[in-house]
Amino acid sequence: MDEAGITWTTNKHRNRYYKSTFENITEDRRAKIMDVAISEFAARGYNATNINVIAKKAGISIGSMYSYFESKEALFLTIVDEGFHLLETAINEVSAESEDIFDIFEKLLIYSRNYAINYPEMNQIYLDLTTQGLSSLSAKLSKQMESITAKFYYESLKAAKQKGIVRYDLDERLASFYLDNLIIMFQFSFTSDYYKERMKIFLGTDVIEDEDKIIKGLMDFVKKAMLP
Amino acid sequence: MDEAGITWTTNKHRNRYYKSTFENITEDRRAKIMDVAISEFAARGYNATNINVIAKKAGISIGSMYSYFESKEALFLTIVDEGFHLLETAINEVSAESEDIFDIFEKLLIYSRNYAINYPEMNQIYLDLTTQGLSSLSAKLSKQMESITAKFYYESLKAAKQKGIVRYDLDERLASFYLDNLIIMFQFSFTSDYYKERMKIFLGTDVIEDEDKIIKGLMDFVKKAMLP
Repeated sequence: MDEAGITWTTNKHRNRYYKSTFENITEDRRAKIMDVAISEFAARGYNATNINVIAKKAGISIGSMYSYFESKEALFLTIVDEGFHLLETAINEVSAESEDIFDIFEKLLIYSRNYAINYPEMNQIYLDLTTQGLSSLSAKLSKQMESITAKFYYESLKAAKQKGIVRYDLDERLASFYLDNLIIMFQFSFTSDYYKERMKIFLGTDVIEDEDKIIKGLMDFVKKAMLP
Repeated sequence: MDEAGITWTTNKHRNRYYKSTFENITEDRRAKIMDVAISEFAARGYNATNINVIAKKAGISIGSMYSYFESKEALFLTIVDEGFHLLETAINEVSAESEDIFDIFEKLLIYSRNYAINYPEMNQIYLDLTTQGLSSLSAKLSKQMESITAKFYYESLKAAKQKGIVRYDLDERLASFYLDNLIIMFQFSFTSDYYKERMKIFLGTDVIEDEDKIIKGLMDFVKKAMLP
């Protein structure tokens, strides 16, 4: 595990953006490179990050860096692919453990808060990914990251409707979109300084220290919106 | 009006981040500089934008640029201040025209969609502003941009509660936060390629062409969540 709490094994991903040489170095060295890269991308954003600076801070030559990754983009995509893998794992866990759509929504809220707190830099990278500065990669990455979530909500809502847990006139696609919008903004509220400050302004310091109250209030809001 | 559709007058703002020399040049020249700056910041993000490139593209010397703006930050804050002014104007208009909190919410939804479509680059800059790459300016900018919205929601919800329009047990601060989260994500969905693609994935191409349906569905969702 590196400082970001992520194990960089090389066999779990669908996509492989690094060169095979990256598999041949020690785990420590791999972790060091990824750790520095995550910090740099998180702090500066993709466009302002320099792969030479990452190599230097990781204590490797730029030649070695390019022997592992073809480009800054390939290095970045290796990190994003790890984020995708974390998301996929989380959704599978929540799916296996949950009773119904409200149970799923609450577990996802708690998970997204914990994820934002445990992996702040991965979350900051996700936030950066949504900006127009990353537009060259947007279509591909949005499809990869969002399809799995959209499908999961849609199917959970469809099942809930069949069981009569949510109102019959609720549109599954629209409701999926609204629910995920609420989760994303909740997650971002623990991710960047801007959103942390914003949450403090909206809720006051007393409420933001009581995260259960924010989650309980949101569960209540969503239940009233969707119950039959 | 420059291409971004914004008139750069110099007397409407609370804060002045440019030097007084910027007031002495022709409106055309001022518009050209701001237009190029907005495009650059929107496309690359703050950290990757180079003030020398902006000067060159605007057809002025870097010496002239620094005679108008002390730094890249000052130039950026001049643009953000214009965004703040647009937000303030919108809230005042919506406030004067609206009957109750649901009317306000619907008008803000429509406004935020129109704003995102009419000023795509200003919206892309706002999105960039929320990322961790801008953390050096976050506390100040978040307070400036978000306080006015938070106060407006809070007071509208308080009034609605007193009139019995929303349920008595609704927490005004929590509800303000959830409502604004829904509006921000709706606005972002028309702002960056990532979010546009995401909306397409969640809703399908048939629904995203029917924006009224998305707004109507959201009004329905929020009313059911908040009505007595």
